[in-house]
Amino acid sequence: MISSSPVERTDFPQRTHFIEDLLETVGQTVKVAGWVSRRRDLGSVIFIDLRDRTGTLQLVFNRDLGTPEEMMQLADTLRNEFVIAVTGCLVERDKQTINPKIATGHIELVVKEVQLVNRAKNPPFYIQEGIEVDEQVRLKYRYLDLRRPEMQRTLRLRHQVFSAFREFLNQHDFLEIETPMLTRSTPEGARDYIVPSRLQHGEFYALPQSPQIFKQLLMVAGYERYYQIARCFRDEDLRADRQPEFTQLDIETSFLPTDDLLKMMEEMFAYVFAKVLGVNLTLPMKRLTYADAMRLYGSDKPDLRFSMAMVDVETFARESSLEPFHKALENGGIVTALVVPGCAAYSRKQLDELTQFVKDYGLSGLATVAWQSEGIKSSIQKFVTPEQLTRLMDTVQAKQGDLVLIAAGKEKTVRQAMGALRLKLGRDLSLIDEGAYCFLWVVDFPLFSYDEELGRYVAEHHPFTMPKREDLHLLENHPEHVRAQAYDLVLNGYELSSGSMRIYQRDLQERMFRALGFSEDEARKQFGFLLDAFEYGTPPHGGIAFGLDRLVMLMAGGKSLRDCIAFPKTASATDLMMDAPSPATPEQLATLGISLRTTVK
Amino acid sequence: MISSSPVERTDFPQRTHFIEDLLETVGQTVKVAGWVSRRRDLGSVIFIDLRDRTGTLQLVFNRDLGTPEEMMQLADTLRNEFVIAVTGCLVERDKQTINPKIATGHIELVVKEVQLVNRAKNPPFYIQEGIEVDEQVRLKYRYLDLRRPEMQRTLRLRHQVFSAFREFLNQHDFLEIETPMLTRSTPEGARDYIVPSRLQHGEFYALPQSPQIFKQLLMVAGYERYYQIARCFRDEDLRADRQPEFTQLDIETSFLPTDDLLKMMEEMFAYVFAKVLGVNLTLPMKRLTYADAMRLYGSDKPDLRFSMAMVDVETFARESSLEPFHKALENGGIVTALVVPGCAAYSRKQLDELTQFVKDYGLSGLATVAWQSEGIKSSIQKFVTPEQLTRLMDTVQAKQGDLVLIAAGKEKTVRQAMGALRLKLGRDLSLIDEGAYCFLWVVDFPLFSYDEELGRYVAEHHPFTMPKREDLHLLENHPEHVRAQAYDLVLNGYELSSGSMRIYQRDLQERMFRALGFSEDEARKQFGFLLDAFEYGTPPHGGIAFGLDRLVMLMAGGKSLRDCIAFPKTASATDLMMDAPSPATPEQLATLGISLRTTVK
Repeated sequence: MISSSPVERTDFPQRTHFIEDLLETVGQTVKVAGWVSRRRDLGSVIFIDLRDRTGTLQLVFNRDLGTPEEMMQLADTLRNEFVIAVTGCLVERDKQTINPKIATGHIELVVKEVQLVNRAKNPPFYIQEGIEVDEQVRLKYRYLDLRRPEMQRTLRLRHQVFSAFREFLNQHDFLEIETPMLTRSTPEGARDYIVPSRLQHGEFYALPQSPQIFKQLLMVAGYERYYQIARCFRDEDLRADRQPEFTQLDIETSFLPTDDLLKMMEEMFAYVFAKVLGVNLTLPMKRLTYADAMRLYGSDKPDLRFSMAMVDVETFARESSLEPFHKALENGGIVTALVVPGCAAYSRKQLDELTQFVKDYGLSGLATVAWQSEGIKSSIQKFVTPEQLTRLMDTVQAKQGDLVLIAAGKEKTVRQAMGALRLKLGRDLSLIDEGAYCFLWVVDFPLFSYDEELGRYVAEHHPFTMPKREDLHLLENHPEHVRAQAYDLVLNGYELSSGSMRIYQRDLQERMFRALGFSEDEARKQFGFLLDAFEYGTPPHGGIAFGLDRLVMLMAGGKSLRDCIAFPKTASATDLMMDAPSPATPEQLATLGISLRTTVK
Repeated sequence: MISSSPVERTDFPQRTHFIEDLLETVGQTVKVAGWVSRRRDLGSVIFIDLRDRTGTLQLVFNRDLGTPEEMMQLADTLRNEFVIAVTGCLVERDKQTINPKIATGHIELVVKEVQLVNRAKNPPFYIQEGIEVDEQVRLKYRYLDLRRPEMQRTLRLRHQVFSAFREFLNQHDFLEIETPMLTRSTPEGARDYIVPSRLQHGEFYALPQSPQIFKQLLMVAGYERYYQIARCFRDEDLRADRQPEFTQLDIETSFLPTDDLLKMMEEMFAYVFAKVLGVNLTLPMKRLTYADAMRLYGSDKPDLRFSMAMVDVETFARESSLEPFHKALENGGIVTALVVPGCAAYSRKQLDELTQFVKDYGLSGLATVAWQSEGIKSSIQKFVTPEQLTRLMDTVQAKQGDLVLIAAGKEKTVRQAMGALRLKLGRDLSLIDEGAYCFLWVVDFPLFSYDEELGRYVAEHHPFTMPKREDLHLLENHPEHVRAQAYDLVLNGYELSSGSMRIYQRDLQERMFRALGFSEDEARKQFGFLLDAFEYGTPPHGGIAFGLDRLVMLMAGGKSLRDCIAFPKTASATDLMMDAPSPATPEQLATLGISLRTTVK
């Protein structure tokens, strides 16, 4: 432990300026305070970079310029991350020492007095940009990691993004309304975190996976335009881009048709991106139906920063004599092609790699057609005529130098495999404009998906999603064909949001619950209050929720959600700094009426 | 259940205007949508009040003015809380039918077309102002209760208050930073809500009682100005004015001395009150030390909307021959007086009531002195001379017509009893200006209080509070005399906030933990990461947290916290609408590695 004498402990040295405000103060005596971020000792002169949250300033300790002797000696003892307060005269730097890389690069402070406010041990890693440090160490010492400029920039960006969303929504007459954190477990969806009740032993609150039901009830209550930047919880096994608690911008409106809502949301994003990043988004944003997104890109969240859509080549397949093509079509499957620009000269080894890639996704192989300078060469040229190959090049709009990859099989498998291959090629071939923000609405999702494990249909979004009116008659007998009034916003291949118009009539909601396999009793028990609410004058309503952690990650140009959250958890949902979770005391458990099934630790 | 034919189900009738925007549209054809809030059938004419979230508008169905016959018939079927959309021509009302009480009282809509969007059952209570309904029913049907204008006003006010705080803080370079909800149990303070971990059986997260430690770590991390509108949790037995989850405005700053911080907070409140209520607060706000607040008002959160301070009358007591006065002083107690203006004529019965009131607080009785028109009369005139009584009137600054109440005994008991009596009299005599906002800082709190149950000192605020420098030498041997650099903001007798400067050196924090009875091991185990953090260059810092639920309640002029929260819990921490908490499934418990101690339900 570092001891420090009382004389060093001057509470609250009052700075006169933040560093970023110094640019206009040349010639004045100022007082600044912050952290030592670098120190260079040239003997008669000592330079120190002082950091506060607004920037960095060069301090000069120089006897010849009037720094008192005892301050020179004190400067000699300063080390990185010491907290100091400094009084001095702000001067222009000599021309040859100007540092154009930082905002204060043309000024420096000639020190008259320095106060040591607090000492610092040598930190476990450097407090600077782009360090290569094990993330476990960064998370354990998060308070030091958060000192680094890139983390400060990201949290500042996060704040600005949140503020801009609120500004836009407040201007558009939305009310932010808080909904409970201690609420009720609901089925359908991820696993809940639950909280034992002390007053009702054996009963539990659930932390919300989203404020879905509350926001719908606020529509019943006539608020018409609601939003909330809400903390939500899911007790799922964590992937790299998941956190047990996450933040979403939750929105619900009444009397607003889908088109109007999506238009308003587009304007909101345009406002936020212009205000925070100075980026002008092109409106309206693109839209694709779910069916088209799957057909063209093999994904319900395609990255449209590059094109490379699939082209189905049924005619070509039928004209060929290739057995697997015919078999695929006979079995109701598809034959589809991807054009890989400029890759006609791919080697056997490179092509094998691509084939291996799709095999991992369940395809049996890839047919390849390369339009080389000496002509069109193909792995299946025994089964097609040169004319057929030429017509194929026309069909898929390939140019000389391009490589065409063809896959056949069950539709779902082929689409997913070719979609993944498309993404891999986009990245490998640097087809992606990393600076672009490519927004896309995917609409008309299926209302249900079939859960093999449960042996029944489950709601693709959630059980409150309004079916498309024209598909309503299919609800009982062909649920797989019912489309939802649902829309996702996709940014650069990431699903940013999920939204839908909601059911607002009791009888339709009851049909929906039946379609999901709820008995009347179960529906009544779980959602009785909601069914009741629908009978007291519920307006047509719908909404959307945006994942803000991911949005901030994309806006910050980062790759990890954890870098966009001040105090994130690891993939095993632990907090390495505070060491949470941690054992409860026997008294706590007794008070809550619960016990542990096995003795631990 | 209400059945409705498909024809009634026109999705999303697109309104052209909110009601509040209609004032400029006389003569135009408009479409509005909302809820039927009142219907008067005069035979040939039907009037309906239509409500949306912005106001109420009178609809006129009148054949003679051109309402089609089938619309007249439809109007006949409409009932309260039906959702409708209406097209018509906006006209000025006849002079004699103008309603000056509502904003749209001079206009009405002559209906051309009405769409029935959704029906409604008869609600269990009227959707209007100031209803007298059992709160249990209001909470069960919260979605209807929230439709009432006063609830809508309060939630709108809440939103405006939150927005105004954010505006001010954003303008002053604060960053809003979110801290975790799934965190670690900390000792000292209220009971935690805990959340079992699925991945680490036997371990638990705690929901935060406040972001205290995180915000201090953000200061270590150099953010300097942090805020968060944060949800916090306390599993305590609930009083009328407590909720298991509550919202606080949490603030922390570095390098900012107490005076600067309090000044900034005062300006923040002035900004919010001016912006939201149009009320100009007088700055600077009053300040009292804790010692003075207790001495003058017998409370650490005095209501200063009226004066009536205690005046100690030791000289008078010594000069009297009244045994209890002498005994009180001999035992180190006090004799103190309250002047009750204009109550010299109180009857014996009225005086008995006051005496009974203070007896409930542990006093043996009250001496009374009434300055009536015929002279000064006292319950103790056998023990004092008329001259002494006259001098007493001078000491306590009583006027003719006033009643003086005198109590003697142990200081703590007397102060509390007389403080409570002061409040009661203030209310009973209508001395309180109900429209006033009387802010007060109470400063220099004791650092510790003695917990009789635990048999040791506990932190009055929390264990991170900085002692006053001049009292530091008392920390080990006279902790009861150490004052804290702590400050509470009081509004109209309610504690709005609690704040302090924090300890920022490891050795002082360790002394503090020792004074609180922590062993080195315990301190290390619970707060090791914080003690470590203090060694890496921690700036001087301090902060404050404001209870926003209560603030909104006071600004809305309400008496119940529950009326200021969209979905509150009852005093037994239940949600009557959703029926939470509720039993977990056996699978949920097994997954979490916990079991119930007793079988329930």
